[in-house]
Amino acid sequence: MLSEFSLIDRYFAQRARTGARRATLGIGDDCALIAPAAGEMLAVSTDMLVEGRHFFPDVDPHALGHKALAVNLSDLAAMGAQPLGFTLAFALPKPDENWLAAFSAGMFELAERHDCELMGGDTTAGPLNLCLTVFGSVRQDVALRRDTAQTGDDIWVSGTPGDARAGLAAIRGEWPHAAIDSTDAAYFRRALEYPQPQVALGLALRGVARAALDISDGLAGDLRHILTRSHVNADIDVDALPLSDALARLPRELQLQCALAGGDDYELCFTAAPQQREAVAAAAQQAGVRVTRIGTITSRDTASQAAHEQPDAAPTMTWRDRAGTPLNLTLQGFDHFHAD
Amino acid sequence: MLSEFSLIDRYFAQRARTGARRATLGIGDDCALIAPAAGEMLAVSTDMLVEGRHFFPDVDPHALGHKALAVNLSDLAAMGAQPLGFTLAFALPKPDENWLAAFSAGMFELAERHDCELMGGDTTAGPLNLCLTVFGSVRQDVALRRDTAQTGDDIWVSGTPGDARAGLAAIRGEWPHAAIDSTDAAYFRRALEYPQPQVALGLALRGVARAALDISDGLAGDLRHILTRSHVNADIDVDALPLSDALARLPRELQLQCALAGGDDYELCFTAAPQQREAVAAAAQQAGVRVTRIGTITSRDTASQAAHEQPDAAPTMTWRDRAGTPLNLTLQGFDHFHAD
Repeated sequence: MLSEFSLIDRYFAQRARTGARRATLGIGDDCALIAPAAGEMLAVSTDMLVEGRHFFPDVDPHALGHKALAVNLSDLAAMGAQPLGFTLAFALPKPDENWLAAFSAGMFELAERHDCELMGGDTTAGPLNLCLTVFGSVRQDVALRRDTAQTGDDIWVSGTPGDARAGLAAIRGEWPHAAIDSTDAAYFRRALEYPQPQVALGLALRGVARAALDISDGLAGDLRHILTRSHVNADIDVDALPLSDALARLPRELQLQCALAGGDDYELCFTAAPQQREAVAAAAQQAGVRVTRIGTITSRDTASQAAHEQPDAAPTMTWRDRAGTPLNLTLQGFDHFHAD
Repeated sequence: MLSEFSLIDRYFAQRARTGARRATLGIGDDCALIAPAAGEMLAVSTDMLVEGRHFFPDVDPHALGHKALAVNLSDLAAMGAQPLGFTLAFALPKPDENWLAAFSAGMFELAERHDCELMGGDTTAGPLNLCLTVFGSVRQDVALRRDTAQTGDDIWVSGTPGDARAGLAAIRGEWPHAAIDSTDAAYFRRALEYPQPQVALGLALRGVARAALDISDGLAGDLRHILTRSHVNADIDVDALPLSDALARLPRELQLQCALAGGDDYELCFTAAPQQREAVAAAAQQAGVRVTRIGTITSRDTASQAAHEQPDAAPTMTWRDRAGTPLNLTLQGFDHFHAD
């Protein structure tokens, strides 16, 4: 045991021990013990965050602590699962008290807001790396899956996707011609650094939405996962995309690139039958979140021999403007912060 | 999506999808869904392995795949939990097909032996880092904890601790004066690279052992965790330590340092009431594992005011030879492969 690693004990293990209510044993024994409520399943997701790929070397540690947990809670939100707890494994080049204090504060503030408790972990010396595994509870029959979209479903998105990508551009000084003012830059940066996982919306959408996922790699790329796994296509009204006021002040081409191909949003993209529109609106109101209908699930050409032989073939996304005119958008090659 | 990361899909995700029986959804959706059997708890443990700290940069990837899962299964063994599944997150500098093929083969061979299925994961580019989270199933009332040792309990250990530490020395060429012959060196090295998690023993010890943990940082240091959490002391017969034939050929001082302070053994250390000796022997026979009684749990001096005021104060370990004569052993400063 490195004596300096007692700092980590102070900021994580002690806090987990005093706060623990749900997990049995946990930090201090070989394993934590946890069970979902009777009749429910445990939803499990794991994410690894690496310096230079998912965050900048000089990232504010408070923001990093928040985001490391937020991206994992977002996976629970996308399943409609109620957060229960998480494990945290991380490698640090050298424990630094100020850094650990801020990092743990950012993480625990979000954890407490979602009643999600630290159940166990591992720490080691090494290049900075964060690996979280989150646990939630959901009934299997109402879990929000990716493979359940149906032809005719509305396609919805929460919040205003694209702001996080504009935040990355603002930090990098990527678009000198776009002249982002400082208030907008601060807004974009906050969207990138403090994404809010849509846990309440995911819970409210159980039994209402048909398929769902969270947007981590960009709306177009992530929606493609639903289309592939559900064997359907999509028709998107590009003029319906919900844009923040700040994003709406950028050139139109950047608006669309950010909203459709920008990563790190952690909003939910979901489908629901048209007769569920009022129920979707009610769920959004209950969660205090804006949701917008942006398109329709369409069928694959099942007459084609190719569709039968290659059920996992690439789906087709059709982009249209408000008048219904098809648009030719090039989303390839738009640089993400992380691309895996 | 980096196209080269489709290699990872080939070696991990596809295999997980075709092999999955226990987890619902899993790889390809936002979360895996899993539930323990009725009346059981899910035991959860997470470990992070870092190059240069837990393994050498030129480690055989097959051995690394084995060991990354083995150290996690060992945590389940130490709880008496039946393995169910695991998630794998890893960062790789650059996907290399030969490396991934060997790494995944080493991991899945062990996973299949323990019927433990890959349920989900995450991959990213970055300095080599492996983070596994394992899930097992155990009834809470028979889970093997660390805080339940009682005065008068026998102290047991499985296998022959110390061999892994000698393997590290053999690779490093650390003890030129000890003249390890090449057969012994190969044996030691295998102990270091292919530790066998004592899953069957852990299962057989449920209801028999009182407290248990696995030896990752050395018998003395790990036993100390049981003593601290159970508020007891220990009396160890150093001459009773089980040594492999190869370790017994080393100078006596190295034997003791390896057996007591060597890390990476992943054997079980446990306590049981003396009336359970036959039951312990039966459990070991059932698991096909050697177990050895090495000492006794003794009480703290509860008359002392300090013991009342500091229930978490450092426990005392007393070392004796076969005749009962106390020995003065210095275990501090014995270099481990990893020390956190």
